[in-house]
Amino acid sequence: MNQAEKAFGKLLDHLRETALLQASMRLLSWDQETHMPPGGAEIRAGQLAQLAGLIQRRRRAAVLGRLLEESRPLAEGVPPDADVAVILREAQRDHDRAKRIPVRLAEQRARLRVLARRAWVEARAERDFARFRPWLDKVFKLMRRWADALGHDGNPYDALVDDYERGETARSLADLFAPLREALPALLGRIRDHGRPVDASPLSRLCPVDAQRGLARAACETVGFDFARGDLTDTVHPFCSGLSPEDVRITTRYRAEAFIDGFFSALHEAGHGMYEQGLPAGEFGTPLGQACSFGIHESQSRLFENLVGRSAGFWRHFFPRVRSAFAGVFDDVAAGDFHRAVNQVRPSFIRVDADEVTYNLHIFLRFDLEQAILAGDLKPRDLPGAWNERFAALFGLTPAHDAEGCLQDVHWGATLVGYFPTYTLGNIYAAQIYERARAELGDLDEGFARGEFAPLLRWLGEKIYRHGRRYPPAELAERVAGAPRSPAALVRHLEARAAETYGL
Amino acid sequence: MNQAEKAFGKLLDHLRETALLQASMRLLSWDQETHMPPGGAEIRAGQLAQLAGLIQRRRRAAVLGRLLEESRPLAEGVPPDADVAVILREAQRDHDRAKRIPVRLAEQRARLRVLARRAWVEARAERDFARFRPWLDKVFKLMRRWADALGHDGNPYDALVDDYERGETARSLADLFAPLREALPALLGRIRDHGRPVDASPLSRLCPVDAQRGLARAACETVGFDFARGDLTDTVHPFCSGLSPEDVRITTRYRAEAFIDGFFSALHEAGHGMYEQGLPAGEFGTPLGQACSFGIHESQSRLFENLVGRSAGFWRHFFPRVRSAFAGVFDDVAAGDFHRAVNQVRPSFIRVDADEVTYNLHIFLRFDLEQAILAGDLKPRDLPGAWNERFAALFGLTPAHDAEGCLQDVHWGATLVGYFPTYTLGNIYAAQIYERARAELGDLDEGFARGEFAPLLRWLGEKIYRHGRRYPPAELAERVAGAPRSPAALVRHLEARAAETYGL
Repeated sequence: MNQAEKAFGKLLDHLRETALLQASMRLLSWDQETHMPPGGAEIRAGQLAQLAGLIQRRRRAAVLGRLLEESRPLAEGVPPDADVAVILREAQRDHDRAKRIPVRLAEQRARLRVLARRAWVEARAERDFARFRPWLDKVFKLMRRWADALGHDGNPYDALVDDYERGETARSLADLFAPLREALPALLGRIRDHGRPVDASPLSRLCPVDAQRGLARAACETVGFDFARGDLTDTVHPFCSGLSPEDVRITTRYRAEAFIDGFFSALHEAGHGMYEQGLPAGEFGTPLGQACSFGIHESQSRLFENLVGRSAGFWRHFFPRVRSAFAGVFDDVAAGDFHRAVNQVRPSFIRVDADEVTYNLHIFLRFDLEQAILAGDLKPRDLPGAWNERFAALFGLTPAHDAEGCLQDVHWGATLVGYFPTYTLGNIYAAQIYERARAELGDLDEGFARGEFAPLLRWLGEKIYRHGRRYPPAELAERVAGAPRSPAALVRHLEARAAETYGL
Repeated sequence: MNQAEKAFGKLLDHLRETALLQASMRLLSWDQETHMPPGGAEIRAGQLAQLAGLIQRRRRAAVLGRLLEESRPLAEGVPPDADVAVILREAQRDHDRAKRIPVRLAEQRARLRVLARRAWVEARAERDFARFRPWLDKVFKLMRRWADALGHDGNPYDALVDDYERGETARSLADLFAPLREALPALLGRIRDHGRPVDASPLSRLCPVDAQRGLARAACETVGFDFARGDLTDTVHPFCSGLSPEDVRITTRYRAEAFIDGFFSALHEAGHGMYEQGLPAGEFGTPLGQACSFGIHESQSRLFENLVGRSAGFWRHFFPRVRSAFAGVFDDVAAGDFHRAVNQVRPSFIRVDADEVTYNLHIFLRFDLEQAILAGDLKPRDLPGAWNERFAALFGLTPAHDAEGCLQDVHWGATLVGYFPTYTLGNIYAAQIYERARAELGDLDEGFARGEFAPLLRWLGEKIYRHGRRYPPAELAERVAGAPRSPAALVRHLEARAAETYGL
């Protein structure tokens, strides 16, 4: 073994040790949102800050820089998408970015995540924005420091976006979204004015939560989430956390009067979960074992939630199970009507429960507001007013209280500023990827109706999951879709679904 | 602030940082036994070994030794049970012992705990000792190295016991237990030969597991476990894990045909849990915020499981809730008969489900066998034979398979060699402590019948919980009991209960 090979071996060890700490941090966070009693938050903040500090020290470590340097000869003369080239390129990028974030700032962020999130949970439960306001202030101040530490060309938002979606900026995303901003209100208007009515009232019938839990699990299993390597748990705000491909935790929430919301959230998280389960386990800790980006991640969650989960084929297969899970409740509802109901398009308050058309309007609202706050153009204390005003303009509705307005999402309390646009990016990628899958695999819907979901999952694993961070996200999306990225496929999909549901 | 005060401040910070890592380790272990999918074991072993290594490094650190040294003047001229004296004495003891255990050995033990435990779960499920045997080998070999590293006067078992119960040796425990070894078979014989029959058959009636879960929770709440600062979860082998007084996890297991077993296990763990919740939260990380010993810990679990949980007063209060939880199942059973049933004394295979009399025989069996294995007098491969032979001699029964024999307990798979005697020590202390509580608080049973459990818990908190490691365990027990330790109180208790149950 030569010098470079030796260094590379040590580099892999270093990366894996860091990944073990990250997996521990993820478990502590998962527990915080699923099992930790409220009193545990102080100690948990200390635990997470401590681990964040240990991780940040490792990611910045001079020894890591040296190992990268010494390994470099191995990447010479090999294609840029060869394993060793990918590992060295991505690990170098991580190291370079980590060096800009002081250990202390990483610790502060980890601590703030726990405490701001706790304040958010309480404020949301009590519909009391004032309780969350000081924390929102702290979050945006800290994330402004974070952005400045990372560095940017004038717009701090760019630095944050790049953390979730390398290569993107506020501008590149706004440009990509522009045709959607244009098309969606028009589609919404056509549905409202010309669609044949959809009766979604059966969806608010009372369904026992225990039965919902079993059904959500069955749905995740049906589309391919592997419960031998993962679990589904209750939470306040649904999320997915992958400790390793062998241990992936997904969560959802249940309300007796709105079973379909928790159901689709479970499918959404299962989409994330299957991506995590599909990463190469042998590459644990290396960039090849990590998901490509949050936008690609959201493309998988939104694909399973919507493209698969709201398809006619899925419901032909799955509606009988809904019927038998809630004995008697849906006996008078025809399968086709149920499928139309779950595709109802109607302005509503809660993003995660929104239909496919209005969903992106929810994102645009947040995308605009978080940029304004980060830039200092909007004060956190003015958020509720600004939210409600824009919401009324976009949706024609005014939230009755902040829990169905600006307090509904966990993200800002969790310091995830700049994350929201990855959802619309995910929707765009998902539609393109799904079009391509249908072109290559034939009529997926017919397969779903027979309960066959494996071919799609296999294809996604082959095209996306197994590659980890081999390609930058935009490049990966274009490779898979076989076309330049564009919201056109998403618009086509939404129009087709509107045709199916509303006879347009 | 002088030099010593400055050093002491830094010492407290050092101890708290270590405690944060320990809390993270405990959460990872709790998760391993409650939620982790089987595939997660490899990564989990890596995570726990890593944290064990970080902790061991901190506990051995030269800087810790220096801070202890520099703080020493603060303990001069103060009483030995003053806070600062206790912290310095106990932290010094921990540091001295930690220095004898190499980091690598601590890492190996943490890794082995995960992998050996997984092998145990599988072997137990398949009733296949051969699957566990190589791991049992590894555990005893490693624990022999651990004992030798700690140092001992010829008997390695002493070093391990001292880890759980400072000041005890194989000899001191054997001497303490001797009168019990004598008294119990005689009591068992009298019950068998002269007791009026007890009908325990209602206890095997089918009780839905969901209702059991709710009832176990209600029972823990009734005796004083605080669910705002803790939680109760399902597991394979019941245990308690305190991350901090604000976050205490207890677990139990349920079988439809033996509801009372999971019920008493829950009360047992609630006893542990209330001790953890009663430690002074402000002392997190210092010896004053840590439980005194495992023997004292078990005295609290066994006290709530048996002295409280099998009392007439408890069942006068609680039986109506059992009746309504399992609608119809116990309608034909009188409260008094139910209480006699839960106090039935009869040789049986499973330790944690054993009655109060035979329970200690289960411990003696394990106490003898683990000493023999550690000393090399018994080969792990010969364990099933040795177990069954001694079991037949003690109980007059032969296990049908190893899952109801030598594979029943998690302890050896979790590297807890030397732990078992703390249960009988706990029983002895519990009886003495409870006698004293009755002397000071009056008729506890009458209070229980009215649902009043708080006075006892308050008293225990005052006498035991709030002191942390202020006194060595044997001294604490004697202080609380107001008498030298002895199994006499336990024998008196068992005879009184036999009189009540069997009319002896």
